[in-house]
Amino acid sequence: MSHTQQLEVLNRRQCLDRLQQVRVGRLVFTEDALPAIQPVNFRIWRDDVVIRVAGGPKLAAATDHHVVAFEADELDPDLRSGWSVTVVGTAEPITEVDDLVAVAGTFIEPWVRGRREHFVRIRTDRMTGRQFLEDAVPAYRP
Amino acid sequence: MSHTQQLEVLNRRQCLDRLQQVRVGRLVFTEDALPAIQPVNFRIWRDDVVIRVAGGPKLAAATDHHVVAFEADELDPDLRSGWSVTVVGTAEPITEVDDLVAVAGTFIEPWVRGRREHFVRIRTDRMTGRQFLEDAVPAYRP
Repeated sequence: MSHTQQLEVLNRRQCLDRLQQVRVGRLVFTEDALPAIQPVNFRIWRDDVVIRVAGGPKLAAATDHHVVAFEADELDPDLRSGWSVTVVGTAEPITEVDDLVAVAGTFIEPWVRGRREHFVRIRTDRMTGRQFLEDAVPAYRP
Repeated sequence: MSHTQQLEVLNRRQCLDRLQQVRVGRLVFTEDALPAIQPVNFRIWRDDVVIRVAGGPKLAAATDHHVVAFEADELDPDLRSGWSVTVVGTAEPITEVDDLVAVAGTFIEPWVRGRREHFVRIRTDRMTGRQFLEDAVPAYRP
């Protein structure tokens, strides 16, 4: 079976639409001067990404208003189709009570024992997305 | 329904075992001084990660022997169970013909039209992995 593939660049609206279809993404930050990646629960809120963190380096990065990267995707096992969206932005802790209530209500049940929950907003000013499209290649016919 | 969760740290062998169960991961590198994340096809070869790239920034990073991060995971939609493995290491292009033949044969069909294929090895000296375990919480019984 033969396959070719094309990449389609997604616009901002398409990126946000896709991010709203999933609930787990990956946060990329710096830990001990090295890149670190951790899966995180997230939601789209006011067109920004909000992640829930339980302390540690992720929270440190957020509190210090560091630039972090966030990625979410839906990909088939061989990357022949699917999409990927990446956000790069300053991480800011959400501290306003009204905002916290609004945001917390969109997440599911607590999930890490002994956590201290914090919610961090990552602005989507810099957001890029790509759709992986498999071409319609004529199937082999004997 | 109530859920709690624990994190289990994976050892090197456990990390490699899990990486061999999937074929798509995410490469983290620097592009225009900002973090960038792209899905990539990969295989485990000689206990290292080998990704296939089609030119562009990913290849530039590899050729220059930059430190990159690589992540693969299998996660359920709410991050209640699954695993995540991250590798941080220098990216090196594979150039020996024997190595190229051995590596290329482990990948599936070409997938991006018009590409120039390159294979890049990321050493797994620094590899961390975590398993997300959902606790056995007694179910509610009326």
